[in-house]
Amino acid sequence: MRYSRLFGKSVYGDQGGSKFNSHQLLVKGGFIRESTAGRYFFLPLGWRVHEKIRAIIKQEMDRAGAQEMITPTLHPLELWRETNRTSTVGFELMVVQDRRGAEFALGGTAEEMVVDAVRGFQISYRDLPFNIYQFSNKFRDELRARGGLLRVREFVMKDAYSFHTDAVDFQREYTHMGDVYRIIFDRMGLDTVQVEADNGYIGGDYCHEFVVDSPIGESRFLMSEDGTYAAHEDVARFYREPVNLDEPVLEFQIIDQPEWVKTMEDNERHYGRPRSHYLKNVVYRHTGTDEIIIAVVRGDLDVNKSKLEHVIDAVGQLEEATDADLGRIGTQRGWVHSWGHEGARYIGDASLTTVHNFIGGQKEETTDSVNVNYGRDFECEILADIAMAQAGHRTEDGSQRLVERRGIEVGNIFQLGYHYSEKMAGAVFTDKDGTDKPFYMGCYGIGLGRTMATIAEKYHDDNGIVWPPSVTPFHVHLVALRGAEAFTAEVYERLHSAGYDVLWDDRDESPGVKFNDADLIGIPVRLVTSKRNGDKLEWKRRDSDSRELLNLDEVVDRLTTIYH
Amino acid sequence: MRYSRLFGKSVYGDQGGSKFNSHQLLVKGGFIRESTAGRYFFLPLGWRVHEKIRAIIKQEMDRAGAQEMITPTLHPLELWRETNRTSTVGFELMVVQDRRGAEFALGGTAEEMVVDAVRGFQISYRDLPFNIYQFSNKFRDELRARGGLLRVREFVMKDAYSFHTDAVDFQREYTHMGDVYRIIFDRMGLDTVQVEADNGYIGGDYCHEFVVDSPIGESRFLMSEDGTYAAHEDVARFYREPVNLDEPVLEFQIIDQPEWVKTMEDNERHYGRPRSHYLKNVVYRHTGTDEIIIAVVRGDLDVNKSKLEHVIDAVGQLEEATDADLGRIGTQRGWVHSWGHEGARYIGDASLTTVHNFIGGQKEETTDSVNVNYGRDFECEILADIAMAQAGHRTEDGSQRLVERRGIEVGNIFQLGYHYSEKMAGAVFTDKDGTDKPFYMGCYGIGLGRTMATIAEKYHDDNGIVWPPSVTPFHVHLVALRGAEAFTAEVYERLHSAGYDVLWDDRDESPGVKFNDADLIGIPVRLVTSKRNGDKLEWKRRDSDSRELLNLDEVVDRLTTIYH
Repeated sequence: MRYSRLFGKSVYGDQGGSKFNSHQLLVKGGFIRESTAGRYFFLPLGWRVHEKIRAIIKQEMDRAGAQEMITPTLHPLELWRETNRTSTVGFELMVVQDRRGAEFALGGTAEEMVVDAVRGFQISYRDLPFNIYQFSNKFRDELRARGGLLRVREFVMKDAYSFHTDAVDFQREYTHMGDVYRIIFDRMGLDTVQVEADNGYIGGDYCHEFVVDSPIGESRFLMSEDGTYAAHEDVARFYREPVNLDEPVLEFQIIDQPEWVKTMEDNERHYGRPRSHYLKNVVYRHTGTDEIIIAVVRGDLDVNKSKLEHVIDAVGQLEEATDADLGRIGTQRGWVHSWGHEGARYIGDASLTTVHNFIGGQKEETTDSVNVNYGRDFECEILADIAMAQAGHRTEDGSQRLVERRGIEVGNIFQLGYHYSEKMAGAVFTDKDGTDKPFYMGCYGIGLGRTMATIAEKYHDDNGIVWPPSVTPFHVHLVALRGAEAFTAEVYERLHSAGYDVLWDDRDESPGVKFNDADLIGIPVRLVTSKRNGDKLEWKRRDSDSRELLNLDEVVDRLTTIYH
Repeated sequence: MRYSRLFGKSVYGDQGGSKFNSHQLLVKGGFIRESTAGRYFFLPLGWRVHEKIRAIIKQEMDRAGAQEMITPTLHPLELWRETNRTSTVGFELMVVQDRRGAEFALGGTAEEMVVDAVRGFQISYRDLPFNIYQFSNKFRDELRARGGLLRVREFVMKDAYSFHTDAVDFQREYTHMGDVYRIIFDRMGLDTVQVEADNGYIGGDYCHEFVVDSPIGESRFLMSEDGTYAAHEDVARFYREPVNLDEPVLEFQIIDQPEWVKTMEDNERHYGRPRSHYLKNVVYRHTGTDEIIIAVVRGDLDVNKSKLEHVIDAVGQLEEATDADLGRIGTQRGWVHSWGHEGARYIGDASLTTVHNFIGGQKEETTDSVNVNYGRDFECEILADIAMAQAGHRTEDGSQRLVERRGIEVGNIFQLGYHYSEKMAGAVFTDKDGTDKPFYMGCYGIGLGRTMATIAEKYHDDNGIVWPPSVTPFHVHLVALRGAEAFTAEVYERLHSAGYDVLWDDRDESPGVKFNDADLIGIPVRLVTSKRNGDKLEWKRRDSDSRELLNLDEVVDRLTTIYH
């Protein structure tokens, strides 16, 4: 391809939008352009990268036995109603009506559609398992778009859905897909950490994100020092270190307390003991049952609402209590008791058993309680893991510290279990014994544009992108300086017929302009023809400063070592 | 791929929906399934065909110098307002609002988007021409979906847009794209006729459809007997054969006429002369200017509204006149005069000069006019080609008859000229002389799903589809009968490593079931392994009844003759 003919040439200067390197460089290099906020044109150069990423994913998914297909973009909204997702993801979902008034969701994720396709067939246990996937446009009406391709409102996602007879067979595929994902990202030069995460509106019991370490990532997680455990803070499990179990259990007392003692800081000043010695209560309302839930945790911890929701089977249904809610259980803000409010359900964190002689728990206007001990003085309906892990906590087995990490989520895998098949009528297969059973399911996503931006974040320098060979838009950037026209054409033909894609800068521009553009665009190999070089080519890798003069045969040989 | 693992196996019996062979066979064979009316799942088997079609188109477009890119699916509606297309295509356009109330059209065609991308760059004459294209989902809120993939509401279209300095350079590309289209369709086994058509809501002055001959096609057109001229009836040009120019011109008369003479049939009975001897008037209202337009044609012809709109530059703006409109020019239905109505514009067809002594033209309750002659007794503001061509008419040069043909439109190419670049601010390039000039444009579309259905319409028999080798979902259908398991596995491996995609029917089913499925699915080559065949394979082409026993080497050799 002659650069003079390419639509979407390089531009210089700040390109507006975010300050992320990937965004700036992808726009400057002529890879992408914004249409409206969060929606991008992929220009020919950018689309080549995007499609290389697609090809790698497709190759590995096919090799793993998955089957590509496609679902329509417009999902009948009644399908989303079957699974009740119109309410749980409503704010991100875009809805469109056709001329007859029928409502459709613009696909944001396709679980319902795929189950709908599958239930249209008479599936027997003999047909299972299968894993079907697509590359399709996904729409998310995000509140804020950000960072070029990192968080957008429209993007191509590879989304796969697997159907199984049972959890055991699913687990095999889940592990398999994790391995496949590592291979996929490895091939693009991305090291990923497999991070436990919350299933959120997708449903199911567990899932993992594939996260690429990056200071600009939105995905924060905790990892053990040796890297064997990684989880989002809102699902991370951790060891509740005993605080003072060696202290003797003292007698429960209600004591006077100055009125100024209100906050945790006030308590620390007043009693002179650290945060872990106080009881913290957080009140929620269950939007489904209208119940009041009081979560009780050790004072140095925070309630993890997501864990709490899972514990009481109320995913997406807890809201912070209002003053009116507090009134319903006969109290007000700041004076919530760790026990005793009629009509409230008490859920406690496992950390409540790590402290002897808590302070607080039933604060009134001028009194408070001290020497409060779990089991003796109060008990919760459930004692479970409902606290937020923090950096510095120990791993669940106590062997290592958790450290905070940050990165970009490029993929995810979800256990769905029976979440969809039980909600959607007819999502069953005929088992060996002739009975109908619901499918056990999983799903697996990769965002292509975000992956592309992540590669650019990881592989660039001050002058531009440094594409890994596996995703480069062209194999060779051929810079033709004056006086070598015939030879350049010969080089182009030779490389082209050897199967290499060559971007040939044939413009009548100065060497400086051409070299700058080559650095900005970031093709792994730059070759320069010039009068001075004669029948030799100057070979330069984008990721190195060394230059060598090679003849054409040597160039072809050396290319095979890079692109094999 | 083992057939037992394939998602989307064959089904038998009538599949509902249309009676079109392509629809029935594509559903039965497990290629597609309907989601909602006009929106289809492409199952793994069908997607393989779709993607082979895509690959052929991509290969030829790239070879032709076009550059693939992508535009977002959601088009900001303000772009469509710039070109005024929200009103001209409003009824088919689906519109969606985001959470902020911003309006977007679901892309139905992407002229505005592509121009918007292009005008974001400083384009110089040196950057031109270029042809950029995409494969993207298109949405059409069609009143009626029909015939499986033949007329749908959502489909993948290859749409290309070319940008030029002037009409001359565009013409070169337009001709070139026509040639490329012929190659593309040829490679898929489709003979196409390049048919002149109306640009409709796309805009521009001329365009051509690529039509595949088919009795179920919706595209009707007229073709010269030798095939060198083909055009839709609404744009087809034809020769106005002189009717009676040898008769002497007689004196104009107003004569009495019985009141029962109202229709064309009444006139024929009363005067005993054929239809060509009467004047026919059709009245329209211009929705933009509110003008009344009276179209006058020879009685045996019909007004072609589309031609009429082009003649007076009112594309998409003429509506049939109401009684109130007729009242405005002082007349009523049935009594419209071919001249003399105050405030009406008269546009005549060229056929008005082919008759001497017309009957009619100013019919009143009890009188009519005879011996009316154009030029002497009345004249129109414009005399032009505003009549509908019919089968049996002669070609414009009079040399041949036009015959009616019918087919499926699989692609189209459009001259757009300055239609978009003049409406959209900044859609300019800097010319050699330093001035800004609007782009001269063209666009080029192919519907992939419809092409796939057309192939199935052309290539099938009573038992199923007979895919051309270029688009077959698999190269070989390997039917494994009992007793040859080890050899079958060896065959599969050998063919797979030779680069062939093999659908291996490994099910525990009878030979009859397997053979029926093989015929239904329609892969060009069927190979059978069985105990009886030993280390030989039964080779059968889907398009032939002959069977041969070959050894594995012979099979591999013969496959290269089919898939080269």
